[in-house]
Amino acid sequence: MPDIYLPDDRYFGPDPRQKDVAQQLYIQIADAPLICPHGHVDPRLFADPDYSFGSPADLFIIPDHYIFRMLYSQGIQLESLGVPRVDGGAVEQDHRKIWQIFADNFYLFRGTPTGMWLNYSLHFIFGIDEKLTSETAQAIYDRIADSLEYPDFRPRKLFERFNVEVLATTDAATDPLDYHRAIRDSGWDGNIIPTFRPDGVVNIDAAGWRENIQSLSNLFGVEVSSYRTLVQALENRRAFFKSMGATATDHAAVTAYTNALSDQEAETIFQRALKGDATAADATQFTGHMLMQMARMSIDDGLVMQLHVGSHRGHNRQISERFGKDKGDDIPIQGEFTRGLHPLLNAFGNDTRLNLILFTLDETTYGRELAPIAGHYPSVKLGPPWWFFDSLNGMNRYFDQVMETAGLYNTAGFNDDTRAFPSIPARHDLWRRAAANWIAGLVVRGIVDMDDAEAMIQDSAYGLAKKAYKL
Amino acid sequence: MPDIYLPDDRYFGPDPRQKDVAQQLYIQIADAPLICPHGHVDPRLFADPDYSFGSPADLFIIPDHYIFRMLYSQGIQLESLGVPRVDGGAVEQDHRKIWQIFADNFYLFRGTPTGMWLNYSLHFIFGIDEKLTSETAQAIYDRIADSLEYPDFRPRKLFERFNVEVLATTDAATDPLDYHRAIRDSGWDGNIIPTFRPDGVVNIDAAGWRENIQSLSNLFGVEVSSYRTLVQALENRRAFFKSMGATATDHAAVTAYTNALSDQEAETIFQRALKGDATAADATQFTGHMLMQMARMSIDDGLVMQLHVGSHRGHNRQISERFGKDKGDDIPIQGEFTRGLHPLLNAFGNDTRLNLILFTLDETTYGRELAPIAGHYPSVKLGPPWWFFDSLNGMNRYFDQVMETAGLYNTAGFNDDTRAFPSIPARHDLWRRAAANWIAGLVVRGIVDMDDAEAMIQDSAYGLAKKAYKL
Amino acid sequence: MPDIYLPDDRYFGPDPRQKDVAQQLYIQIADAPLICPHGHVDPRLFADPDYSFGSPADLFIIPDHYIFRMLYSQGIQLESLGVPRVDGGAVEQDHRKIWQIFADNFYLFRGTPTGMWLNYSLHFIFGIDEKLTSETAQAIYDRIADSLEYPDFRPRKLFERFNVEVLATTDAATDPLDYHRAIRDSGWDGNIIPTFRPDGVVNIDAAGWRENIQSLSNLFGVEVSSYRTLVQALENRRAFFKSMGATATDHAAVTAYTNALSDQEAETIFQRALKGDATAADATQFTGHMLMQMARMSIDDGLVMQLHVGSHRGHNRQISERFGKDKGDDIPIQGEFTRGLHPLLNAFGNDTRLNLILFTLDETTYGRELAPIAGHYPSVKLGPPWWFFDSLNGMNRYFDQVMETAGLYNTAGFNDDTRAFPSIPARHDLWRRAAANWIAGLVVRGIVDMDDAEAMIQDSAYGLAKKAYKL
Repeated sequence: MPDIYLPDDRYFGPDPRQKDVAQQLYIQIADAPLICPHGHVDPRLFADPDYSFGSPADLFIIPDHYIFRMLYSQGIQLESLGVPRVDGGAVEQDHRKIWQIFADNFYLFRGTPTGMWLNYSLHFIFGIDEKLTSETAQAIYDRIADSLEYPDFRPRKLFERFNVEVLATTDAATDPLDYHRAIRDSGWDGNIIPTFRPDGVVNIDAAGWRENIQSLSNLFGVEVSSYRTLVQALENRRAFFKSMGATATDHAAVTAYTNALSDQEAETIFQRALKGDATAADATQFTGHMLMQMARMSIDDGLVMQLHVGSHRGHNRQISERFGKDKGDDIPIQGEFTRGLHPLLNAFGNDTRLNLILFTLDETTYGRELAPIAGHYPSVKLGPPWWFFDSLNGMNRYFDQVMETAGLYNTAGFNDDTRAFPSIPARHDLWRRAAANWIAGLVVRGIVDMDDAEAMIQDSAYGLAKKAYKL
Repeated sequence: MPDIYLPDDRYFGPDPRQKDVAQQLYIQIADAPLICPHGHVDPRLFADPDYSFGSPADLFIIPDHYIFRMLYSQGIQLESLGVPRVDGGAVEQDHRKIWQIFADNFYLFRGTPTGMWLNYSLHFIFGIDEKLTSETAQAIYDRIADSLEYPDFRPRKLFERFNVEVLATTDAATDPLDYHRAIRDSGWDGNIIPTFRPDGVVNIDAAGWRENIQSLSNLFGVEVSSYRTLVQALENRRAFFKSMGATATDHAAVTAYTNALSDQEAETIFQRALKGDATAADATQFTGHMLMQMARMSIDDGLVMQLHVGSHRGHNRQISERFGKDKGDDIPIQGEFTRGLHPLLNAFGNDTRLNLILFTLDETTYGRELAPIAGHYPSVKLGPPWWFFDSLNGMNRYFDQVMETAGLYNTAGFNDDTRAFPSIPARHDLWRRAAANWIAGLVVRGIVDMDDAEAMIQDSAYGLAKKAYKL
Repeated sequence: MPDIYLPDDRYFGPDPRQKDVAQQLYIQIADAPLICPHGHVDPRLFADPDYSFGSPADLFIIPDHYIFRMLYSQGIQLESLGVPRVDGGAVEQDHRKIWQIFADNFYLFRGTPTGMWLNYSLHFIFGIDEKLTSETAQAIYDRIADSLEYPDFRPRKLFERFNVEVLATTDAATDPLDYHRAIRDSGWDGNIIPTFRPDGVVNIDAAGWRENIQSLSNLFGVEVSSYRTLVQALENRRAFFKSMGATATDHAAVTAYTNALSDQEAETIFQRALKGDATAADATQFTGHMLMQMARMSIDDGLVMQLHVGSHRGHNRQISERFGKDKGDDIPIQGEFTRGLHPLLNAFGNDTRLNLILFTLDETTYGRELAPIAGHYPSVKLGPPWWFFDSLNGMNRYFDQVMETAGLYNTAGFNDDTRAFPSIPARHDLWRRAAANWIAGLVVRGIVDMDDAEAMIQDSAYGLAKKAYKL
């Protein structure tokens, strides 16, 4: 049986001297606590001390669109992988069969971040040494299934084993945060905090927007029947999230367009939206306006503001209709920040109380727009490579294209942005190795000395994220 | 005399360990047969067993826009290089003079793919050891001219010597494929197949469109006087091409815009085009609609569909008017696929009977759009780096930006896309070395093991192209 | 005290063989004279033989937006750095305090070109060995301040010490070139030449345009009251600049849009502009037209034409209003050349008397548009990486993305484009090392032999710039 390939010097460049320096830097932070300021882990995992992950397929395949999109791209139907249908239609229930399909096709992940994360998780979390193949599939399934029976594999235990210092979830503005409350009330001392995500109520073209407004009204205790009450309700919810430990908000938009409307213009659009008469242009204007309102509120309440732009969500209508959203069919589009953020940055960008962290799905904006913006405006920092770019090559390109202009200290360190809790250590390990290798490259090219390099790796692996998110 | 510089470890990275692994991988496929699923070699070369290439200038300079565009960029007139004028005006007839100009300026190709291909061809095809310089020019001319006299340098002999397993040409929908028929009828067993390229009849703004429609009518035997008959004629010609061995179609468009028209809308535009009244917007709409029709036909008849977008053809009007098209003055423009292909992919993208291979002239679309699309839709694969990007650095960027997200198995291997038959082995050798070096980089970075690496190099060099094009 | 980190093999890649070849190439041009064909050094420095740079803060911080933008991005107010306010408001006057802030925050420049340039200047110009830190700040200040007292640190002496063969400044069309005349008249033999920059009079949306037109009228001796007189005045000023040694013009525009207007259309817009009634569209059209006029004049008078596009200037209104322009808040936007330059290149691009050097702030245009354009049109060359991309990584990307398609000989070598005179040797040294390392990479990858490599490094470091700018 071939072994899983995880050499100790993995992800470092091949030059022996650079590798040696990278290793020296890496060991300094290899065991540092994990700062996880942005992600999509379900807080339910930690609310119930006895929460179980289910089967190996439940853990690794069925909820992970990184995995099933690749299988789907080769013609494997999502039903055969147990991905639930919106209509409740039949999908494969035999998790051993699902696992076998995955193992049979694991070669598809050669050289991909998903392959790297999975190998790490199998070996370092579940102690598996053999490479996942058609032949080893069932034995590995058994091994994982066995492990998952043990209390050591409950989420809280893994949280402690992973040495997570803090983990932020992402929660709708209309989420009552009951799971977060349950975690707090349980007496367990794992530091799990919410993040305020108001897209569902501020983007008037969001699916279920009117229902979301109703939920917001219920939580706020006042009918959100006007733009003015919407703003009040949002301020109220932000205060509530903050009281529950949140230090940040998160905003998704198709583009970085911002533009201040007058109160009356905003009200007019809001009323059209309530009546179901809003146009696509209305939605663009309203989102662009609300981003500016959110920046204003951030200055007031101190919550860090994250902005993620550039995804054409639900590109494959058939998949969206059959399986719902977040099914691997979100495709990026071209990005633009210089003109889009001009109104917001002119209104608030010089205010050091604003902390705006920007994320892009278009790498061409790294060097052209984002690094110059972050390298000038005191309120702006750059988030790490996101989504398709959260990979070894993506990180290398980020270091290459961002750091010379923005400077390391206008970046926000790493965040794993994952739904897949067990992949968290793998993702941080990859970032830490990539950062160590980048900094080692600066050392061996005569650009920074070892003193600087040691400070830089500490900041990259731990300090920057903690500071940027006020953790 | 300095020698041509072609060290055995060329194109591999400098690290000794990576170079060693790359060499191990390369030797496994160095002599594998060449799969050439897309290119522009003239089938006439193989129809006549005694076809001669002419002089060294006829072979290497006069038909190769990669070469004469670089000389032109330095102020050397195309007339002095023997490039024929549209008006039949005088051009240089002394091929030794042309060759001397080329040799005098061969330093311009330092570090370019053209320089690399040419050195390979001179040495490995013609046995030349000396570097091409002003001083060696005439002796090398003599040597090539001598060789070209021998039967071993007839195209069919070179085809066999190059170990080409299959070579696809590119042929207008209105081509009667007489040369292909002659090759078949000759009893020679070289596998030369046509590719169906209908741009001249489906792009209503194509030069000579009405003449092309007339040719199509003649071949079809029915007057193509309506959109409906156009579709029928195309289906008929596809069937004919398929009967002649074609496994694929090829489509060029300025952008990836697709959009389904109603039959009536399509008919209206077609009638305007017949009258010469079609607008630029009509052409965009009609091409966007016909791409969808072509996808539909591909599902029906199983021909692989290739789509090449992004070239502003004939950018230099003076050159186009004086020398015609394909004279090195086609300049790329920005590309967009996410929105452009949305209609086509929503209509047909989930159908595993569709095989759509995408090519771009805008590398920013690799990681942002193409890899995510290919990494999701079962019908889509990515073609190799095209045109200006078919180079060592271009390949490295492709591996770097595409593979992590799309995965190797959603790519279509290599194709040489060349008019220059003698450059084919040089181009495949460059790809094979670049691929070996990329995969070796994965090995020495601890990302894939040698077993995986060996499978990957086989697929990259041979298997993927064969499979993607159903060869 | 830690030493400044400036190893002899700095900026070369880590592979020992590549490093060795790079070093061999570098030493051949390390001491070659500096060709500085484009920059923003104030000619006043050389007009007065006793010109003094002032304090270390005057020299390194207050005028250098690369430095103070990074400090500002971290919340340090420009007033505290002594940057003068437009309104004459109070700013820090204690230059030791300013220097201390800079030193306290010098870690922000880790891995940035600014950090690299500064370390070079401190060590090689001022003989400083200790690293700049909070602790060493005042001692280093003393050392620089002492040096600046000596005649050896007058600009003319440094010019000679730096071995500058020629330095071009950038001067408004309305500049009487009095400092240049004073330099000439002084008998000093330093070769300082002007460059004709007419943006202030041809871009009708330029700040102070009407005042500039008045100045132009005064210099021309004829009231510039019509488009026709504008053209005459420009031709006249170009002739004057040429008589003062200029070999080039420089043009800035937001985009590369060009378009010929009829004389009457141009006149109509010009008259609207004189009345203050011109629209933004008028400005776009007029600039696009004047670029074509400038190309025509270049053909007539032989001045090399430089075009810099892509900057959204003065993005931060608050900074612009308080401190003026060029304060680190110019942010790039997406670029486009293929369509934008189509009219200009079709009118003049085949004329070998035109020498058009293009600069971009959008690296995506390197391989997609600029290299194909330069690799075809005889009139076009590509300028080196500009502004945010004038860095080690920026140069590496330029070599990687431009050279294979354009060829080295369609590029214009290096220019430092700096206001900061003492940083000139640091910038050229970085370019020369980066070029040596790039060419060494070609050698160790088996792409060019040492003979070619030696010719290439000579051209990269010296010959190309001299030839492209007719120096």
